[in-house]
Formats: sequence, structure tokens, C-alpha cells
Amino acid sequence: MATVFNGRKIAQNIKQEVKNELSQLKEVTHKTPGLAAILVGERKDSQIYFRMKKKSAEEVGIKIFETIFPENTTQEEIEKVIQKYNQDTNIHGILVELPLPIHINQAQILDMIDEKKDVDGFTPQSVGKLAMKDRDPLFSGCTPLGCIELLDRYNIPIESKHAVVVGRSNLVGLPTSMLLLNRNATVTIVHSKTTDIHEKISQADILVAAIQKPEFIQGSWLKKGAVVLDVGINQIPDKTQKSGFRIVGDVDFENAKVSLGEDGFITPVPGGLGPMTIAMLMRNVLKSFKMHELKN
Amino acid sequence: MATVFNGRKIAQNIKQEVKNELSQLKEVTHKTPGLAAILVGERKDSQIYFRMKKKSAEEVGIKIFETIFPENTTQEEIEKVIQKYNQDTNIHGILVELPLPIHINQAQILDMIDEKKDVDGFTPQSVGKLAMKDRDPLFSGCTPLGCIELLDRYNIPIESKHAVVVGRSNLVGLPTSMLLLNRNATVTIVHSKTTDIHEKISQADILVAAIQKPEFIQGSWLKKGAVVLDVGINQIPDKTQKSGFRIVGDVDFENAKVSLGEDGFITPVPGGLGPMTIAMLMRNVLKSFKMHELKN
Repeated sequence: MATVFNGRKIAQNIKQEVKNELSQLKEVTHKTPGLAAILVGERKDSQIYFRMKKKSAEEVGIKIFETIFPENTTQEEIEKVIQKYNQDTNIHGILVELPLPIHINQAQILDMIDEKKDVDGFTPQSVGKLAMKDRDPLFSGCTPLGCIELLDRYNIPIESKHAVVVGRSNLVGLPTSMLLLNRNATVTIVHSKTTDIHEKISQADILVAAIQKPEFIQGSWLKKGAVVLDVGINQIPDKTQKSGFRIVGDVDFENAKVSLGEDGFITPVPGGLGPMTIAMLMRNVLKSFKMHELKN
Repeated sequence: MATVFNGRKIAQNIKQEVKNELSQLKEVTHKTPGLAAILVGERKDSQIYFRMKKKSAEEVGIKIFETIFPENTTQEEIEKVIQKYNQDTNIHGILVELPLPIHINQAQILDMIDEKKDVDGFTPQSVGKLAMKDRDPLFSGCTPLGCIELLDRYNIPIESKHAVVVGRSNLVGLPTSMLLLNRNATVTIVHSKTTDIHEKISQADILVAAIQKPEFIQGSWLKKGAVVLDVGINQIPDKTQKSGFRIVGDVDFENAKVSLGEDGFITPVPGGLGPMTIAMLMRNVLKSFKMHELKN
């Protein structure tokens, strides 16, 4: 049986570290980091993530400045708020819960965020510097960072390993590929147009699954001893649950655990990269706080 | 024997197309596109590329505004010139011949170039948008664009093919990977830390070689029927030549031609992606000219 990553525990450790460092910094700066959090509309999943980020921020000592817009808000109203936060010296990070409603030009909104406050790593400048050799972005995406951090905390080597990333989204697939490449993995990016996806996945020493298809990746496809990072969060019907559903990843977890064997590793869903993502957001806000307040 | 791409002829066709379009545009705009070209120092290879770009620009009807700095020039002097060209409405593209001398902060110079005049596609904004899904950059790098254009002109499909890119430079490897991914190839990026590079290369339907190691990739490594784009430009000693050397690519061309078989394709070096790069630069200047002058 593969080792199951304890994302919740690692995330808790990281948050504790951020909390400790922030409380030391408070003595020097006499300031509290501020995170502007913008939520538009009433998507249930967005509301849940938003609440979890708020809760973690409170735990570690980051002040949340919350702006909640109704579904039918205008582009202009969101942009105005971002402009305000870009200039506000009490704000060290700006996060916009995605996706935005379809009548909003999401790219234009993200492009407006000051690169120095882009704690989600979503701006083209941040992504460009991440992709470029010898050009570190100020911030990288929180889920991609969470993937790397989890490997590091379990002392799993990345260099020269063959990492296969399933999915090429701006949020996860693409930036995670770039981070793995920066750490000297050999990287293959597969996606919906890949014909022999099963065969490609079977070559992975490190597999990142980020396609949002419930249990799409079968246990038997995986190489013995591989490391599986499952970023999928999917609802499937489950009558045994009060809610009527349960959350599963992109990988068939139970069979994968067996196929991977004793040397393998796999993240659970939930309790894997979800909490890690939030912990890395806290760390990005800490980084921004230090960058802004310890200039001299 | 594999088909040898005729990069020179395709490049000539593209330049003719650019020339024709520019002459039509002249009747509408009464303007000539301007390309600012900055060369620092006395590197022989940079001087050659610089001259070739100048010559092509003259051929197609692009006016070159040339600035040549001595090796020992300062950061400030180069930055001043870029600022000037950023503001100059007669300039539609700015190119800085790379690499710059080591005492110059190259990244800082490239970051200064107005994204709207970044005809080499080197700024973080351009690279970021190239890497992001559904976000087209204004300009992509000319060698990467040349790779794709060559495939397109020979009607070679990219979608669902396994593209293996050898090398991950900012100039070629990384952006070419992103362009291939945008065209729905499955992409593997291999590099100096890849352990089984030979085996990875043997899986390629489309191989991009960009490591600058003379004839490193052996013919026998290649899959029958594969398509090889060799971006390497390397000097090796050759007593039969007046100069005492000749130019070869990263792939052992003669053996590759045989191994690839009748269904294979391979670019020659020289005469492959070199001329294509310059042709795509001309096309990027044309694109910029239209963007700036046909606003209404």
C-alpha cells in the first residue's frame, strides 16, 4: 500500500510557521498584513473556498478585507475595487475568487492586479517570469506551490524525475509544469487531445492530476512506486452521505493505493492539495508583507 | 530518405508576402514600419544575425533604426535608448540582439520594452500570455513561430502528436513548447538533467532540438517517420572549408535523414530555422505596424 500524504497536517504546520513569523514581524513593523478578497456571485464552491481562506487568514493573523459583489455586478465595479486595493498600503495581497461570472472579462480583471500584490500568481507577468529560466516571479500559484511543497516536506526528489501533468489549466496544470521544470524534472503535459493518455501516465514518476474528471485515472495505469498528486475536486452521488454526494479526486484512490505499492505516494481527496493551497496562499501573503514592510 | 524542409524558400515566400502587404498598406497609411535594432559589443555571431535582419528588413520595406553600442556601454545608456524608442511613434518594433555583455542586466532591459513593440516576444507579459490558455500574446518569439510556420506550410499536423522539445531556453525551448501545446500537441520538455534523454527522444513524433550541442542527437535515436526541427547552430572544425569550420545543427543530419525514412522530415542547418526566424521577425513587425496604424 502506498503512503498517503497528510496534506492537512503539513498545511497546519505551514500555517503555524506563518503565524509565528507574522507575530515576530509585528514587533518590528507594528503592522498586520492585509488580504483583499473579492467574491462575485453565489457559486457554492467559490463560497466554500472563500470561507476557508478567510478562516485560515484569521488563524494566522492576516486581516481580510472582504468585498462581495452580486452576480450581476459590472466589470467597472470590480475594476474600481481592484484599483483601490492596488493603491491601499494596508493591503499586501489581492485575491479574486475564480471563476467570475461569464459576463465579466476575467483576464482584464486579473491583468489589473498589481504584480506586487498578486498573491495568487495569476497575472501574465507572474506566469511569464515563472515560465522563463532564471526569472523568479514574485508569486506563483498556490496549488502549484502546494504540490512542490508537499514533495519537499516528504523529501521526495524532483530533479531528473519524469513528471507527467494531466491538464493544462492556467490555475494548475500549466504553472505546476513550469515549477516542476524549474526543479529540473523532465516534464510531459498531457490533455484532452492526447491520444494515448493511459500510456503517457504509466511513464510518470510524479503524476499531477488536474482535469476535474472524477476517478478518471485508474489505479492500473500507474507505475509502481510513483508519486501521485491529485488536484481534482469532484462531486459524485453517494446515498450513504447526508448531503447525497461525496468528494473524489481525478484518480481512483483506493485502487491506486494498491497499484502504487509500498514505495508509492498519493494525496487523498479531500485532505491533500486543498489545505495545501490555502496554506501556500498564507505564505504568499507573508512573503508580500515582508517585501512591502521590510524594504530597508 | 526523409524530406528536407526548404527553410530558405519558405522564408523567402513569407518575406514576399510581408513585402506585398506592406506596399498595399503604404497606400492607406502613407507610413513605413520602423524597427529599432540595438546591438551591443562585438560578438561575431550577433553581428552576423544583426546584418541578416537588417538586410531582410530592407528587402521587405521596413526601415531600420540602428543603435550600436560598444562592449563597455552602461545599463543606463541602453535603457535610455529603449525608453526613447518606446515613445517614438515611427518605431513599431524594438529588437535587442542577445546575449548582452555580462555586466548588463539583460532581464531588466527586456522588461522595459513596451509589450506593444516587443516583436521578439521576450517580455514577461508576452511569455506569460503565451503560456496561459486563452490568452494570446501580441507577439511570440520568432524562432518558435518559425517552427510552427514551417510545419503548417508543409501541412504537417500538430494536434495530438507527441512533441519532444530538447532544451528549455527562454529564446527557443520554452516558448516553442508552449506554442506546440497551444496547438494541442502532447509536449515533453527534456534538458540537461533528463536521465534517459535518448529514450525520450525516440518517442517524438515532432522533435525540436535546441541545445546548441553539435550533432548531439544521433540518427538512430529517432522514430521512423518523425519530424525533426533542428534549431542548433554550432561551429565545428572543418579543414576542407576556407574558414576552417562549418555550421552544423544539434542533430546528426546525414544519419537522421536515413533513420527517419521516407515519411520523415528534417530541417537542414543552415537553411532551416535560421531564415524562418528572420522571416517571422518581419511578420511580427508587420503585425505591429497594422496594430499601431490601422487602429480605427
